[in-house]
Amino acid sequence: MPETPFWTQDSLEDIVSARSKIMGAGVWAAARPDDRPVISFSGGLPDVPSLPSEELLRATRTVLDRERREALQYGGTFGAQPLRDAIAERSSGIEGLPLTDEHVIVTSGAAHGIGIACEALLDPGDTVLVESPTFPGSLRTIHSFGATVEAVPMDEDGIRVDLVEEALNRLADEGRQAKLLYLIPTHQNPEGSTLPLDRREKLLELARDHRILLLEDDAYGELWFGDEPPPSLFSLSGGELAIKVLTFSKIIATGLRLGWNLAPPTLINRMAALRYDMGSSPYLGRTVAEMIRNGDLDRHVERLRAIYRRKLERLCDALDEHCGDYISYQRPGGGFFVWVGLRPGLSALEVQRVANEKAVIIGAGPHFFADSNVTQHLRLAFSYTPVEEIEEGVHRLGEALREVAATSAVK
Amino acid sequence: MPETPFWTQDSLEDIVSARSKIMGAGVWAAARPDDRPVISFSGGLPDVPSLPSEELLRATRTVLDRERREALQYGGTFGAQPLRDAIAERSSGIEGLPLTDEHVIVTSGAAHGIGIACEALLDPGDTVLVESPTFPGSLRTIHSFGATVEAVPMDEDGIRVDLVEEALNRLADEGRQAKLLYLIPTHQNPEGSTLPLDRREKLLELARDHRILLLEDDAYGELWFGDEPPPSLFSLSGGELAIKVLTFSKIIATGLRLGWNLAPPTLINRMAALRYDMGSSPYLGRTVAEMIRNGDLDRHVERLRAIYRRKLERLCDALDEHCGDYISYQRPGGGFFVWVGLRPGLSALEVQRVANEKAVIIGAGPHFFADSNVTQHLRLAFSYTPVEEIEEGVHRLGEALREVAATSAVK
Repeated sequence: MPETPFWTQDSLEDIVSARSKIMGAGVWAAARPDDRPVISFSGGLPDVPSLPSEELLRATRTVLDRERREALQYGGTFGAQPLRDAIAERSSGIEGLPLTDEHVIVTSGAAHGIGIACEALLDPGDTVLVESPTFPGSLRTIHSFGATVEAVPMDEDGIRVDLVEEALNRLADEGRQAKLLYLIPTHQNPEGSTLPLDRREKLLELARDHRILLLEDDAYGELWFGDEPPPSLFSLSGGELAIKVLTFSKIIATGLRLGWNLAPPTLINRMAALRYDMGSSPYLGRTVAEMIRNGDLDRHVERLRAIYRRKLERLCDALDEHCGDYISYQRPGGGFFVWVGLRPGLSALEVQRVANEKAVIIGAGPHFFADSNVTQHLRLAFSYTPVEEIEEGVHRLGEALREVAATSAVK
Repeated sequence: MPETPFWTQDSLEDIVSARSKIMGAGVWAAARPDDRPVISFSGGLPDVPSLPSEELLRATRTVLDRERREALQYGGTFGAQPLRDAIAERSSGIEGLPLTDEHVIVTSGAAHGIGIACEALLDPGDTVLVESPTFPGSLRTIHSFGATVEAVPMDEDGIRVDLVEEALNRLADEGRQAKLLYLIPTHQNPEGSTLPLDRREKLLELARDHRILLLEDDAYGELWFGDEPPPSLFSLSGGELAIKVLTFSKIIATGLRLGWNLAPPTLINRMAALRYDMGSSPYLGRTVAEMIRNGDLDRHVERLRAIYRRKLERLCDALDEHCGDYISYQRPGGGFFVWVGLRPGLSALEVQRVANEKAVIIGAGPHFFADSNVTQHLRLAFSYTPVEEIEEGVHRLGEALREVAATSAVK
């Protein structure tokens, strides 16, 4: 093979698409494994010991025995029919709406579900409102379609709906119109907040009046630990005004790459019509449909709620004991994350660096902001950390906070 | 739920993307099952009895036992590392090049592989050269990105490279530049032809001189029945000038939705950088990597060659016996298809209709042409039809041909 490649990074610039120019050559890669025995509160990854491999293997065997031909052939752009049916039935209960397969498209995970919504709706120059802070992966996807992102601040209850209205009115004055509002209203990533019912209803009024679609990311919705969260925006609008993006990643395994979108059938069709991949795997889809039908999924979700509730309690107890002087936080009702506010004068990036030296990995707040309105926060994911390591991890974080506070005081 | 939806097909037109407007609301759906006991030569589907479900289940069990944690977690945008490594090693042998994982991106099947190549390269108004006839699914993908398709005719040896040169020169005269040439050089769909070595070399010269990339669809390349086909365009260019699109669909199962692209590492990066789906399933990827490592895949490919060789022989014998007066064809060296030319005066669509009445399903030629240069052909897929039904199916096709010939003579 030649020493000098014909197509180099430079010469490729002449022929790649506008979208590729926006994204460049950098690949969003998973963090490199740390060789030290680190304690990680970093990624939004599920608990490892509970990953349901036995249930998966059993469902695979059943599907290959019973419907081998269908599982191993093309399943269509909407996804495997038994999975669409099983999702429609299960979601009808959760949403309190008479949903059918026409409301369901099977996706290759929530990131893919957000992507196909963007594909169907966004052109370069379009405006998308987003919560700030939010999940950076989704910002990246929205940016890749050339859309302009307008960040709307949040408070401890989630997105400030009054500021959404202000933004929409300001855009209207400028002759612009937002197409989408992207938000994670339940167990938000990174804030952990859940939008109260009255704000949800006000948001739907705005969506109707301004004719914008809500892109409702609900990756964590089923993982609540206390009171059940309010109905989704999709549910409250009678399935009319939102594309609700869901995934089996957090309730089965991220490694499946399988999820689903709920939306009005007209929109489901538009998303399906753009898929060039011949649909998500019917082999995986039928396996998961079997796990829904035989009750394994619901049993597993119950188990996960107990596991994550316990991890969250352990984390909060440890934070109160070891870090109380330096931080404040609001205990989330579900999900994977605690959003920790730092005492004035403490730098999130500095705390992250010192904690890293002590072999504790945490997420720094600035990473999650689409705008420049960065505040001093840490994101602690409690989902992945083995429960017996949580206290030691937080203890080390406390040491890091003390060190940074001492240095900051000197300065 | 409301009687009148808020977002109707009409009102959606105001907010959908340009790409969605091109594609409309129509979804490319699998053909409805025919309730009659039909014999189908229609789809490019693998043989059913040989679908390797035992091998899949065994590999799944091994992977869940051995690497459960990695298989059930995110695997990155390039695909599961063990699969990239296994593909690189296996492809190094096939291509005769020292390939590494950097030349490999795991995709969700060949249709997805073609799609991500288009995403990375095409903007609205770009020009793509294609063989004519070709696989309509790929035309649909290329069109969806707003590209203009220029069809280049074929003869019995595949694409007319002299006409490729003519087209490139004409485009240059018009101040235009094609970005891609999409082709299926080996066991072409629908023609079954394989491009000879000298044409491949000439094509690579053109690609180098005109700085266009070859998008080499090789879904059927390994399924040869006699002589091994010439090296791929990717191989002949030292891995420099082609994106080679491959899939496990035809050599394991279409229901997996798993494939891979081989390309220069710079281009692999650009494709990975645009993926918003967090990569194809590492769970499936590691399962297939295990089937490569334990030898199951290579054994299965050997088995498939024998199965399809036998089906092709059966088909050709039957065509000679029952249809010889009305048709001509060239026996393909591999793949799934025989492209049948009809005697002048016979209409492909009419033959298709009458055959359908006799419960034989065939593909009509006009479906496969990007231009108006439609000739009178049928596409017979021999891959899916049970071997014991082939003769009866062709017998009925012969009756249909006789009927249409009699009617045509009367007219």
